[in-house]
Amino acid sequence: MNLKKHVSLNINVRGVEPSATLAINERCKLLESQGERVKNLGLGQSPFPVPTPVVNALRLYASEKDYLPVKGLAALQEAVAEFHRKKDGVSASPENVIVGPGSKELMFLLQIAYYGEIIVPTPAWVSYVPQAQILGKRVRLLHTTFDEKWHINSERLARFLESEHDVYRPRILILNYPGNPDGVTYTPSELEEIARVAREYEVILLSDEIYGQLHHRGEHVSVARFYPEGTIISSGLSKWCGAGGWRLGTFTFPPDLDWLLEAMATVASETYTSVSAPIQFAAVHAFRGGIAMERYLWHARRILSALGSEFQGIVSDAGIRVHPPEGGFYLFLDFSTFADDLAGRGIRDGATLCERLLADKGVATLPGSAFGRPDSELSARIAYVNFDGSAALAASETIPLHQKLPEDFIPTICDETIEAAREIASWLREG
Amino acid sequence: MNLKKHVSLNINVRGVEPSATLAINERCKLLESQGERVKNLGLGQSPFPVPTPVVNALRLYASEKDYLPVKGLAALQEAVAEFHRKKDGVSASPENVIVGPGSKELMFLLQIAYYGEIIVPTPAWVSYVPQAQILGKRVRLLHTTFDEKWHINSERLARFLESEHDVYRPRILILNYPGNPDGVTYTPSELEEIARVAREYEVILLSDEIYGQLHHRGEHVSVARFYPEGTIISSGLSKWCGAGGWRLGTFTFPPDLDWLLEAMATVASETYTSVSAPIQFAAVHAFRGGIAMERYLWHARRILSALGSEFQGIVSDAGIRVHPPEGGFYLFLDFSTFADDLAGRGIRDGATLCERLLADKGVATLPGSAFGRPDSELSARIAYVNFDGSAALAASETIPLHQKLPEDFIPTICDETIEAAREIASWLREG
Repeated sequence: MNLKKHVSLNINVRGVEPSATLAINERCKLLESQGERVKNLGLGQSPFPVPTPVVNALRLYASEKDYLPVKGLAALQEAVAEFHRKKDGVSASPENVIVGPGSKELMFLLQIAYYGEIIVPTPAWVSYVPQAQILGKRVRLLHTTFDEKWHINSERLARFLESEHDVYRPRILILNYPGNPDGVTYTPSELEEIARVAREYEVILLSDEIYGQLHHRGEHVSVARFYPEGTIISSGLSKWCGAGGWRLGTFTFPPDLDWLLEAMATVASETYTSVSAPIQFAAVHAFRGGIAMERYLWHARRILSALGSEFQGIVSDAGIRVHPPEGGFYLFLDFSTFADDLAGRGIRDGATLCERLLADKGVATLPGSAFGRPDSELSARIAYVNFDGSAALAASETIPLHQKLPEDFIPTICDETIEAAREIASWLREG
Repeated sequence: MNLKKHVSLNINVRGVEPSATLAINERCKLLESQGERVKNLGLGQSPFPVPTPVVNALRLYASEKDYLPVKGLAALQEAVAEFHRKKDGVSASPENVIVGPGSKELMFLLQIAYYGEIIVPTPAWVSYVPQAQILGKRVRLLHTTFDEKWHINSERLARFLESEHDVYRPRILILNYPGNPDGVTYTPSELEEIARVAREYEVILLSDEIYGQLHHRGEHVSVARFYPEGTIISSGLSKWCGAGGWRLGTFTFPPDLDWLLEAMATVASETYTSVSAPIQFAAVHAFRGGIAMERYLWHARRILSALGSEFQGIVSDAGIRVHPPEGGFYLFLDFSTFADDLAGRGIRDGATLCERLLADKGVATLPGSAFGRPDSELSARIAYVNFDGSAALAASETIPLHQKLPEDFIPTICDETIEAAREIASWLREG
């Protein structure tokens, strides 16, 4: 009897590593269980609680038990379309919205349904790559540089698209802004230029705007404004609504891409079927918004903006190249100016850099290679979310919204995060 | 500009039809919106509400927002393992449990991770087939007969397994009992014989026991009792807990198949990530059970058993071949004795049979072909769930559990279901 037939595993699945983000979290827990004190800048989860009206809505609809339509509860499709119409000024229709158990799952379904190529500028959230590997597909990575602000620009994009023999081959370009892992966003004119190139080469855009409402000044602009007919907008509750563990993501399609939406819905009907009913009913309240949601977002932005800037200031003063944060809760640190010093300490790649930072200072970060960057690059992502989000919101609510947070706010409320920034700086000085 | 590139759809996705179960439901809604009165025996959803302690648990844990571990909340893994240990007498360990957004999604992940063949006796729930089609795989259907009680027997199974050139090729056999669409279940000795053959040919069993707790006498036995090392048990909240729309399914693996579990967890980490946190916390209470859960199940079984038997009696008296129900809430009707009569009315296949029953009598059913049976077969599944489950439970609770339900209970509480049975009988007489 031998059921241990490892040979009967799909070969595409065998090489796939567990997600780096989840792995660093497990690592931190292990170290802590061994009595180490770890400052976890690895996991990128919103520090804030789910807004009270949304939690109350989940309580209210807890007994909803019916299977909901595959594409989503009609009221939620309407709320999502309205959200994008109001917040992003794009013309979205309820019937063009699909709701999934996380936008990662929707991305996977898109990769199943679509027969073209996926193009991803890096640094980027790169679950697309293992997803493609599982399905035996390929993803094209386009590396950008610090000086390009980690952005793909339209000339570069046009050159790349033009370089193929078959310039109209089916392709989807994924843009994510405000960005994970870079914390910066595109300007409207940059987006307009990218839209022009995408239209010219008939490239579909998947615009991942899950951090859109966490633009630090509340000024998020969607590329769908400039390329409405070819842009799929990805959103969800995980980041701006603090509900990562609830698992609800949305894709909003333009009418011209209904064939792709319908194909995804068919795959959804044979896989997850529909998203959890009570969660969908509660999500209606999150997407509909209102004054309580807006206040929550104002406070969250003020805290993240102040903390991100303070963190950036500390590591920037230490000589690390990093762009001032514009949205979300990440910074992407470029240690290349320390290449010689670090080589002297035996550090010649990002993974070793992060390992040593964890070993020497108890600061957990993720190497650039986890975001599609070359292994040799001395870069790392930090997530500035290791503070008590409920306490931070409560403290912020005592300070009028038109005021800046007082100088001692961040060092007091987010002390562990700031301490981690100082540890990184001192680690470099010690080198 | 031409984004309507239908050519860039995955060819495997193009031919896939929307699920028949969902389609009949849409059809019924359409007819009702046109003023028709439809008796919907098509959709197989539990008629009962989610038990109160489970709904209350969801309210209590509504603010849980963290991403949970990919395989599931530790307390839920423990509760699921304990559930199978206590209810099924098998040795299940928490670390061998994976929780997914529905067992359908878990089945899809299994089909991705596993590189062998899937074997399904019919009639059967057949989402396995479109799932395989989407992934470019193949499913082997083994047709059974009415006289075999729609069961695969061990001799037949052994002959089939032996017939391949490579008798130890990797294979998974799917068993579902109590069964959808047949409403019957296997005896312990039948399961023991199947287990013996599976062990001999090193076939993995996926034992879909989602209706296990709805065995009408509460006497469900798992095949894992006889083949612990090779059986994966599938369960979830959808049927016995009335929470289909909540989307939570579980697979419980034997230790020897950990390689398959781990591969599925890897795919899960790149797709749905983890199941909705509040739902998982609530599910702990459902799987832990307790006296309130047991009372709920006793009442549900008593109602389903009485209704199923009454329905079976009516259609059986009319001359339809159908086995007395043993669990769940379906009956699989064999109209073959009416073949000549029906042919005289222009009905020569199951789809036409169901169409005409809907057109003539407003009774919605699903043809056997939706369950993997030949198109020409004059068979149909009925789900006897179109009654108010909350009212039925409340009425049942006024009658001591050791008593049978009074004779007028079913005709009063489940009048529309019984009326539909009579309509089927009268439709045959009119022929």
